[in-house]
Amino acid sequence: MHKLPECEFLKLEVVGPRLNLSFNRPDQRNAINSQMGAEFAAVVDWLETTPDVRVVVLRGEGGHFCAGGDIKERRNMAEDIVTPDSDPIMERNRAAGMAFLKFERLPQTTIAVVEGSAFGGGMGYACLADITIVAEGARMGMPETALGVAPAQIAPYVVKRIGLTRARQLALTGERFDGIKAFEYGIAQYLCADAEIDGTLEDVVSRVLHCGPMANAATKAIMLKVGTLPEEEMISFSAQKFSELNRSIEGKEGQSAFAEKRKPAWQTAGDKEEG
Amino acid sequence: MHKLPECEFLKLEVVGPRLNLSFNRPDQRNAINSQMGAEFAAVVDWLETTPDVRVVVLRGEGGHFCAGGDIKERRNMAEDIVTPDSDPIMERNRAAGMAFLKFERLPQTTIAVVEGSAFGGGMGYACLADITIVAEGARMGMPETALGVAPAQIAPYVVKRIGLTRARQLALTGERFDGIKAFEYGIAQYLCADAEIDGTLEDVVSRVLHCGPMANAATKAIMLKVGTLPEEEMISFSAQKFSELNRSIEGKEGQSAFAEKRKPAWQTAGDKEEG
Amino acid sequence: MHKLPECEFLKLEVVGPRLNLSFNRPDQRNAINSQMGAEFAAVVDWLETTPDVRVVVLRGEGGHFCAGGDIKERRNMAEDIVTPDSDPIMERNRAAGMAFLKFERLPQTTIAVVEGSAFGGGMGYACLADITIVAEGARMGMPETALGVAPAQIAPYVVKRIGLTRARQLALTGERFDGIKAFEYGIAQYLCADAEIDGTLEDVVSRVLHCGPMANAATKAIMLKVGTLPEEEMISFSAQKFSELNRSIEGKEGQSAFAEKRKPAWQTAGDKEEG
Repeated sequence: MHKLPECEFLKLEVVGPRLNLSFNRPDQRNAINSQMGAEFAAVVDWLETTPDVRVVVLRGEGGHFCAGGDIKERRNMAEDIVTPDSDPIMERNRAAGMAFLKFERLPQTTIAVVEGSAFGGGMGYACLADITIVAEGARMGMPETALGVAPAQIAPYVVKRIGLTRARQLALTGERFDGIKAFEYGIAQYLCADAEIDGTLEDVVSRVLHCGPMANAATKAIMLKVGTLPEEEMISFSAQKFSELNRSIEGKEGQSAFAEKRKPAWQTAGDKEEG
Repeated sequence: MHKLPECEFLKLEVVGPRLNLSFNRPDQRNAINSQMGAEFAAVVDWLETTPDVRVVVLRGEGGHFCAGGDIKERRNMAEDIVTPDSDPIMERNRAAGMAFLKFERLPQTTIAVVEGSAFGGGMGYACLADITIVAEGARMGMPETALGVAPAQIAPYVVKRIGLTRARQLALTGERFDGIKAFEYGIAQYLCADAEIDGTLEDVVSRVLHCGPMANAATKAIMLKVGTLPEEEMISFSAQKFSELNRSIEGKEGQSAFAEKRKPAWQTAGDKEEG
Repeated sequence: MHKLPECEFLKLEVVGPRLNLSFNRPDQRNAINSQMGAEFAAVVDWLETTPDVRVVVLRGEGGHFCAGGDIKERRNMAEDIVTPDSDPIMERNRAAGMAFLKFERLPQTTIAVVEGSAFGGGMGYACLADITIVAEGARMGMPETALGVAPAQIAPYVVKRIGLTRARQLALTGERFDGIKAFEYGIAQYLCADAEIDGTLEDVVSRVLHCGPMANAATKAIMLKVGTLPEEEMISFSAQKFSELNRSIEGKEGQSAFAEKRKPAWQTAGDKEEG
């Protein structure tokens, strides 16, 4: 495993096949400044080439997930001179969008753990993970429009997550909502009491580790392609992936273990068993 | 503000930044005939060039939203001679579809208030607005197939609103349903008792006016583009919009007001404050 | 009506305008082997050219819907030599995908009746039908990843059915769920107690037969095109279909019957009346 990026505003911890990736500006409710954004992008690049990590847990230090963009910093940037060759706000916004896109496509299974505040970009991260767990007491929303700006780079992930109808209403009213609503809207697939969030997370991680890592990576790749290819190309793409998995060490081991009624090699004793 | 179109079957009323746009054939439960359709298209054209209007409230006179297409009129049209150069039913249907598309893309935030009947085209309008409020006692459905025709121009908006699965089932069975189901299916984002619909509407209008008008217009434009552009183009499009807003008078005012803990200029005393 | 294909692992029964199509390997919980897949594809081809059949009821013999792919058979195939010209697993997987796609596009209205097990490919069939009825006690899931493979050809139908968010979570955890959850997730549009499944099915069939067969076929064709054509082409496509229906014998009969307050010719006495 190559070296983790050095980070000031992200806390990183590798434990076996798992990366704990935490926003770490607790005095600012983990608001995203330029440096945190750049660090996030570097970690995403690292993950792309680190197949030993199978699952990523995205969380916030200090009881809040992420309060969104750092408005004070952005306000100062708005003063910067825009020239025909340079628009620093646009460049930073595009870079954030590219990091979101790469994060969505990671081969790892990603899990967001949302408690406390998750606004703007923070709500974006909650919509970006493969799996999201939300605490009932979480507070979420897209307050951008009330500030005269738009939830721009997170829009695709919010729309894909909860649909155009609910996404438009939330953005065009700036409404805030709690974790229960976030679950009802479909942002999160798991809802729990605030005090049960650690237990819920460990249960979900265990279920993910029960699945084959190459199988999960291929499943993500196939599902993210749906609707982006003509239907017959989609069929060929999926058939190719399916055949590769069947002929892989992992696929042979998984199907042999099934036939032989034993655990496949990638599972460990503690994994959640499906009943 | 330039002059509103003259209308017989639509009632129009501009009150400050708001257009009240009501279907006005109450003796026919506001069924859409050719003239009403043409009037609607003219109002949409007017709105495209009237940025002073920030919010559009779409409603029906007489306690019903809209009973759908005027079947008697259409039956007479079916008798018209179709020549290689002229197919009046197709032309009228295409014109309705173009008006729907333009309405969806308006820079204004649009709100539909659904009470009483909303069938066929009426259900289409309910699925077209950015925000839809439904009264529990509303009656909705797509009865077209039971008449040997199809919910044609509304199909894209119904499918985008509630998904292919629920849309197909409702259309292929012709089932009718009430406002509670309409909310569960995701047609409306707000549900209320019949008697509370005016209060709910004013509350939602107030929330919308709390948001910046250019910010809302840009947010709609971004969200409606999701899935229609390659992902990297989408990122550039959104970054461009975001940068423009940040450098605009509205964006500067909104972020300054936030930093200075005061209301931005576009908000008025009565607006709904997010808690 | 031309001759039904000969089938060993599918049970076929034509009753008036209805085809009862049942998976028929009850000793294997109707697991899909190569022959059953080929038979299914042949029935789909037959349906494409049999407009007298208006509704297809897809079900499983012996109390289970379908347990998914036959893993034992596939494991043996994985041993087959892959040459540059031949990859039997890929070919079979692609053939399954093509049959799914053709089934989705059938002019008939298709109804899946899900009770007992519906895993993997079985869950795919449940997501493929226009209308799905699920019994509360059904057991569903995508266990592929726990076997080191992917839910490949079913992915488009699962994602279109329940969205990318829920689809990813279910596939990447391998979670199993019951009929109540399947209804909540949006796989099925009708939920009933296990003992009421026959009555629910007859009610739904009756509603479908109430609708015009050409109208339903055109409605499916329009709805399935949403999102695949540029918006103005979509408008023209729908207007063309709408005009054709209005000028057809079925459309004229349907609208005349409505005006004359009588049943159209395609309805029979037993059909469900909308109240």
